[in-house]
Amino acid sequence: MKKASIVSVGNEILSGQTVDTNAAHLSAELLSIGVPVVSSFSVGDEIEKIARAFGLASADADVVIATGGLGPTDDDLTRQALAKFLGVELELQNELLEKIEKFFAGRNLQMAQKNKIQAYIPAGAKALPSIGTAPGIMAESEGKLFFALPGVPAEMKRMFEESVLPELRQYASGQAVVVKKVRCFGAGESTIAQRLGTIMQRGRNPLINCTVEFGVIILHIVATAENKDKAEQMALKDEKLLRNTLEKLVYGSGEQSLGEVVGEKLAKQGKTVAVAESCTGGLLAKLITDIPGASEYFTHGWVTYSNRAKTGELGVAADLIEEYGAVSEQVAEAMARGARKEAGTDFAIGITGIAGPDGGSEQKPTGLVYISVDCNEGCQTKRCLFSHNRRFVRLRSAQTALNMLRLKLNI
Amino acid sequence: MKKASIVSVGNEILSGQTVDTNAAHLSAELLSIGVPVVSSFSVGDEIEKIARAFGLASADADVVIATGGLGPTDDDLTRQALAKFLGVELELQNELLEKIEKFFAGRNLQMAQKNKIQAYIPAGAKALPSIGTAPGIMAESEGKLFFALPGVPAEMKRMFEESVLPELRQYASGQAVVVKKVRCFGAGESTIAQRLGTIMQRGRNPLINCTVEFGVIILHIVATAENKDKAEQMALKDEKLLRNTLEKLVYGSGEQSLGEVVGEKLAKQGKTVAVAESCTGGLLAKLITDIPGASEYFTHGWVTYSNRAKTGELGVAADLIEEYGAVSEQVAEAMARGARKEAGTDFAIGITGIAGPDGGSEQKPTGLVYISVDCNEGCQTKRCLFSHNRRFVRLRSAQTALNMLRLKLNI
Repeated sequence: MKKASIVSVGNEILSGQTVDTNAAHLSAELLSIGVPVVSSFSVGDEIEKIARAFGLASADADVVIATGGLGPTDDDLTRQALAKFLGVELELQNELLEKIEKFFAGRNLQMAQKNKIQAYIPAGAKALPSIGTAPGIMAESEGKLFFALPGVPAEMKRMFEESVLPELRQYASGQAVVVKKVRCFGAGESTIAQRLGTIMQRGRNPLINCTVEFGVIILHIVATAENKDKAEQMALKDEKLLRNTLEKLVYGSGEQSLGEVVGEKLAKQGKTVAVAESCTGGLLAKLITDIPGASEYFTHGWVTYSNRAKTGELGVAADLIEEYGAVSEQVAEAMARGARKEAGTDFAIGITGIAGPDGGSEQKPTGLVYISVDCNEGCQTKRCLFSHNRRFVRLRSAQTALNMLRLKLNI
Repeated sequence: MKKASIVSVGNEILSGQTVDTNAAHLSAELLSIGVPVVSSFSVGDEIEKIARAFGLASADADVVIATGGLGPTDDDLTRQALAKFLGVELELQNELLEKIEKFFAGRNLQMAQKNKIQAYIPAGAKALPSIGTAPGIMAESEGKLFFALPGVPAEMKRMFEESVLPELRQYASGQAVVVKKVRCFGAGESTIAQRLGTIMQRGRNPLINCTVEFGVIILHIVATAENKDKAEQMALKDEKLLRNTLEKLVYGSGEQSLGEVVGEKLAKQGKTVAVAESCTGGLLAKLITDIPGASEYFTHGWVTYSNRAKTGELGVAADLIEEYGAVSEQVAEAMARGARKEAGTDFAIGITGIAGPDGGSEQKPTGLVYISVDCNEGCQTKRCLFSHNRRFVRLRSAQTALNMLRLKLNI
């Protein structure tokens, strides 16, 4: 089985100024074609260090993929380092220079002189086309493949898909690994682990791993077999097993968000939803409209961040706010009912709470959130007490609202 | 100078299912106390592999920090691996067991039997208190320090700050490194590099690095000196230099978002803002309300995702939509004006566009967005054409809107 190693280039990574999302993306993509990543290195913007990393990585693996350091500025040194590692010079490619000049001309921009360096690649290497100005590089040495890709995630992903994957599919062979994810909401990690019991044992194939993201428990099914079909079948069988064992806790699979699953159900059932948000401040609407085509089922959203907005836009009675406070079961319910009436939708969600860090009291602490879902059958309100920080409280609130709506749509 | 190495544990990292944000956070924190990270390793959930990584990391560095693999499930193996590497047994700590039992009792939950493993740590090591159920571990061996922290970012950060930093400050000495960031919006990376010229040369101290995040250009000033005060002064001097050179392109520093900077200006000037969003679907309101205390200057938000919502809630004339289309300069302006009138704020922003991937035409392609900012002095509308994907179009639209408002507030 061919193996891969990743080199992430950039002082901003080693100094922690940038989170390396590229390594994760590449690891997942490589695994899906049966080329597991066996090591990964992060190095700063120094020719010596980058060249050394190419050496370490190629000692571990057959395919080395570097990201970052291909830009036009003086701290972009990957092309120089790759040339040094390969023992060759950099050569100007006139064809590349023309492309870069065209890129700028097409946008009515003047090409900065600095961009010219992007037309140089190591002698004997091949340039990979880019959607930005930085072309990628592919080189072969002693039967191993070396790729240098841009650090900007969107450019890197596109180049990997269009230029690197076709090369690798041909190069790689052997065991296939299929990874499937089952996504759960509504219980903690250890409760889920206990319900799964021996299914999560180490050494089992497929192997079941568990991660947590803002209340979403993600079970990763990693199936290994002699070919992709076989691995796919094994993973599918386990997906069914997990769904049967965890029942309603499972809301989706793969990269599906709660917003996506709820959107699909709404569209399928021909239902619509509106939202009225206070503490989540637009986040719930954002999660719903992250999904392309959301306009089919989502029409109206309100961010009523002041009491006047709650009374003026949603018809929440001022008395109600005065008697129970803006953060109360009664106001959450009135927001949901008011939004549904004004928007004329099948469902409406109202959220009011204290996201913090300030604004909490002993009776109504930071993290207290009321979530109401209103529909023809009546209004359901949930009192939640979330911990950690503002970001967490807001995201958990919006996710819990979507999950309440999901459970209503399951009927 | 003491050096550090990071071990990130988890199949979900090597398989790319999870992005390793912990490594970035730790790198930044360690650098700020003068302990640069010189290498980082990602390993899967296997005792042998994790123990080997402890060996490799401790060969590179004086301080080894592992994250992940301390949870209650069978794929959490860091404590076993650390014990193996140190050549000792795991020991049950009754004190830890009581704490974990209390954690569950305090939440009226039953402790899963699986959680008991979290009360075991390697003999001779010290347990570090946790906000979750997973205690951390600190061990010393041959003059080097080893830490095992939870993988959940919120728990890891808290534990690092409260239990690891105090230990390290004492342990570390020597050169101090200060990193400052200057954040720009409104021009591309190479334009900024050209304006900065030799300031960005390699070998310079402070060193200036450049990264890009959704249109925000971040310049990192890395100053190295014999003590923190000196490094701080050098970095501050360069921050001034960058601000003077780049003028209005600089919107902030550190981790400041455009939402934060705009919020500060609004609060300081006693002004208010409302937003009316179509294609950004709540994202602009979300960016504004990400900031604690935003209720001081933000009162009303509308997500008018249908034409009926635009006419009904914002008073956009149906004729206007019919004549120019929902995505037009006229409708963006009417949305902004309508929102300002209804909310009674000093400023209002209207956004309408095509986020894609569907809905574009030759005349109005995907990525076409109109952004209006209305105030007493009149209404300014900008026509933008963003590329890449839905997420990018939405985020760039919201950021551009905030930047337009920022420039108005600079007066």
